[in-house]
Amino acid sequence: MAGTDRSQTATDTPGPAIILVQPQLGENIGTVARAMWNCGLLDLRLVAPRDGWPNDKAVSAASGADIVLNRAQVFETTADAVADLERVYATTARPRDMVKPVFTPRGLAGEMRATMNRGERVGVLFGAERSGLVNEDVMRAFGIVTVPLNPAFTSLNLAQAVLLIGYEWYTSADETPPGVLEIGEGIPASAAEVDALLEHLDLELDKAEYYREPSMRPTMQRNLHNVFRRATMTEQEVRSFRGVVARLAEWRGRRPKKQ
Amino acid sequence: MAGTDRSQTATDTPGPAIILVQPQLGENIGTVARAMWNCGLLDLRLVAPRDGWPNDKAVSAASGADIVLNRAQVFETTADAVADLERVYATTARPRDMVKPVFTPRGLAGEMRATMNRGERVGVLFGAERSGLVNEDVMRAFGIVTVPLNPAFTSLNLAQAVLLIGYEWYTSADETPPGVLEIGEGIPASAAEVDALLEHLDLELDKAEYYREPSMRPTMQRNLHNVFRRATMTEQEVRSFRGVVARLAEWRGRRPKKQ
Repeated sequence: MAGTDRSQTATDTPGPAIILVQPQLGENIGTVARAMWNCGLLDLRLVAPRDGWPNDKAVSAASGADIVLNRAQVFETTADAVADLERVYATTARPRDMVKPVFTPRGLAGEMRATMNRGERVGVLFGAERSGLVNEDVMRAFGIVTVPLNPAFTSLNLAQAVLLIGYEWYTSADETPPGVLEIGEGIPASAAEVDALLEHLDLELDKAEYYREPSMRPTMQRNLHNVFRRATMTEQEVRSFRGVVARLAEWRGRRPKKQ
Repeated sequence: MAGTDRSQTATDTPGPAIILVQPQLGENIGTVARAMWNCGLLDLRLVAPRDGWPNDKAVSAASGADIVLNRAQVFETTADAVADLERVYATTARPRDMVKPVFTPRGLAGEMRATMNRGERVGVLFGAERSGLVNEDVMRAFGIVTVPLNPAFTSLNLAQAVLLIGYEWYTSADETPPGVLEIGEGIPASAAEVDALLEHLDLELDKAEYYREPSMRPTMQRNLHNVFRRATMTEQEVRSFRGVVARLAEWRGRRPKKQ
């Protein structure tokens, strides 16, 4: 049952190890693998999985994250699973009566990167689906990770807990700008008000035979609509544009129609 | 099929609306409800759910997040579902050929809070499981949300996508400190090295009959272990403590044993 190839685990994978202690359902192991690979994590370790290993249900639930399952290592004890790691963290939903540093997933991401930058290997322990980690395993950890969510409803499934840890890990190295926008003045128009303007515009453009090449109509209409959507119009601006459309349509009606 | 009670939607729930456009599986609606309530979100809107509504599979998958399902509103079209919202965002995994601001989930959380602080109502559109949002629905949005994950494996299930958006929304108002630690000098000890020290210590303490009250042994041992775990020992420190234990044990052996 010991790890299949200890030499390949921590050195060739850049992220933290994810250690599932006594996971029950193969399906959950599969969805964990999927969440891990979403976040670029490859080092999955299983401590005494209830239904044995390998597990067909894990494969079907992994939705293509086979690379993680194929590398997964199985251990008999938590101690064996973390033996090569310098720093281990334990995920817990409920407070434990222990003196340890407590991290949010975001704080953990920074802490793990700082630790790995010093050349240490890290891993995060996740307990069984219903019961979580036993105190003995939490004890083994340097620190505790708790996800700050709705206190009235904190129950996360295993894959979701892994996803949030992995997401914070992954994005802590991501430089994607958050997106900055100019905010306009005035009372913003609702979607229904903008819809009404666009319908009015489309109607009048059709009456005016604006779209001379019918095959181009969808693309041209989309481009016109997009300008208004993107503009975050105010109620006043919508009213103004409706006036513009109405006025142009009225004026056009008085001109002699072109051939 | 229109919303059951439009007046109660946006005003009494503080967070953004989550709008699922043509969701296929009831189970996924349930896990979305669970993820929403994890993040304190209550305003779920369904556009033409394939298997009708209400849906028993949604209830069982919601794992207790009934409060979200009970308030869910059903609409025939996306336009109806967002009519009362001032600003709508569309989640997409792949780039679209449209000129719109693009947000990460974190950037979106800040953007939505700023928007809501101006008194506007916001919502996030999620497409069907396999196909995602059609262009017409993306068009309807002010901006696009994309989760920056492993480019080699971006497929997220519906509940996971909702969870990441909701998690960023929830934590953007959370003041939990990320956890700050002092970093020591020296080469950190591995877990196995610390284990060996603790086993050595336990052995010698048992031989020395340190635990006079056997019922107290687990708690006392846990407290002793925890000090060493928390200390992030270096290899040198572990070696030093093993020397301490060995020396004390040796010295004790030379004393006449107490009764």
